Amino acid sequence: MPITLYELVGRDEGRPFSPHCWKTAFALAHKGLDFTTVPTRFLDVPAIENGVTRHVPLIRDGDRLVSDSFEIALYLEQAYPERPTLFAGEGGVALSRFVERWSTSTLHSFIGKALLLDIHDRLGEADQAYFRKSREARIGATLEAASQQREERLEAFRASLAPLRGMVEAQAFIGGEAPLFADHIVAGALQWARVISPFRLLEESDPVAVWFERCLDLYGGLGRQVAAAA
Amino acid sequence: MPITLYELVGRDEGRPFSPHCWKTAFALAHKGLDFTTVPTRFLDVPAIENGVTRHVPLIRDGDRLVSDSFEIALYLEQAYPERPTLFAGEGGVALSRFVERWSTSTLHSFIGKALLLDIHDRLGEADQAYFRKSREARIGATLEAASQQREERLEAFRASLAPLRGMVEAQAFIGGEAPLFADHIVAGALQWARVISPFRLLEESDPVAVWFERCLDLYGGLGRQVAAAA
Repeated sequence: MPITLYELVGRDEGRPFSPHCWKTAFALAHKGLDFTTVPTRFLDVPAIENGVTRHVPLIRDGDRLVSDSFEIALYLEQAYPERPTLFAGEGGVALSRFVERWSTSTLHSFIGKALLLDIHDRLGEADQAYFRKSREARIGATLEAASQQREERLEAFRASLAPLRGMVEAQAFIGGEAPLFADHIVAGALQWARVISPFRLLEESDPVAVWFERCLDLYGGLGRQVAAAA
Repeated sequence: MPITLYELVGRDEGRPFSPHCWKTAFALAHKGLDFTTVPTRFLDVPAIENGVTRHVPLIRDGDRLVSDSFEIALYLEQAYPERPTLFAGEGGVALSRFVERWSTSTLHSFIGKALLLDIHDRLGEADQAYFRKSREARIGATLEAASQQREERLEAFRASLAPLRGMVEAQAFIGGEAPLFADHIVAGALQWARVISPFRLLEESDPVAVWFERCLDLYGGLGRQVAAAA
């Protein structure tokens, strides 16, 4: 039986946008596992699978429910050891946590402010009210104010990607010649931006953008099944 | 026969300071390998081992000469597979490169400017002239000017360590419960600052500082064999 992936959507059910859900979709595809998705709106998350989680991604694999993208990757690695590895060893697990933290403090911290209003605008009406209230409380500013400084912060954001840029200039993937979950972690963040907003995060010639295109080609073009936001 | 490590020193031969040489010293100790050091001044590097390298660290292991701290770690891992691992698998190798690039763009880019004058002041006279000329050409400013802005840049530097801070709050080492070469990479940079300058990079209570103290405790207190600069 295929694995079920609950993933976050806005008004358009065919446009999942959560970076964490994309990480899980990439990880499932990397393992070559069949999966079906259940589009889930923000306000519906607490009700899925009898309220087992407050956040998606959540997967059901037979009797097993696992939430949190990193925990899911660990579960898949342990449950399907004969399939392509997501970590290539214990060192890969430990250091993928570092990539995750780097991605959070670099990509998520920028995208999560710069594109807040774009995210809001693609949500259903009920979700919009929830989203505005919870996010404005979190950042201490209106969604509109958070988005306004994105042009002036863009150059520093691009510069902050230097460690990734250097790597993917020298090799095809963060994982080396083939991708690992570390690639999914960062690609998930860029895919979030790609499907939610036409705002140009990266120059096309940026090695990070070139690497991200390679990630979109993976697994039969899984990431491209959702068109870039226009 | 013990391995020979050529490492960079200034006027004081007992005070090796190169971050890359410290990475190698930590890696050798991690593998439990006997090694002796050859203190080497900047201007003497091109002459060691018949001019085989322009940079230290360089190690001699029997007939084998290896330079570059990462290459040395890879060599040690392959040559001594039965000893404690530096990478814990191929994923650890790939992602240690990411940690290296992050350390370069975060720690080295700050320390390498903020402490330039301190480094200069601890070199021998002949090295001082070489160092000033080469570094001022590289950064396009005098050593004095490069050091001057360090106070105002300090807060942003500390903030930039967020990915590391989050990790070592949650676990003892970057490698998990035990250190890996990824720990040596970052600890080498902080040790560079520690032995070359009394400038306070980190608050004592900063989880990064607490983790670094743990690194200094490793391998019989190898890092503490050189006192902090006063």
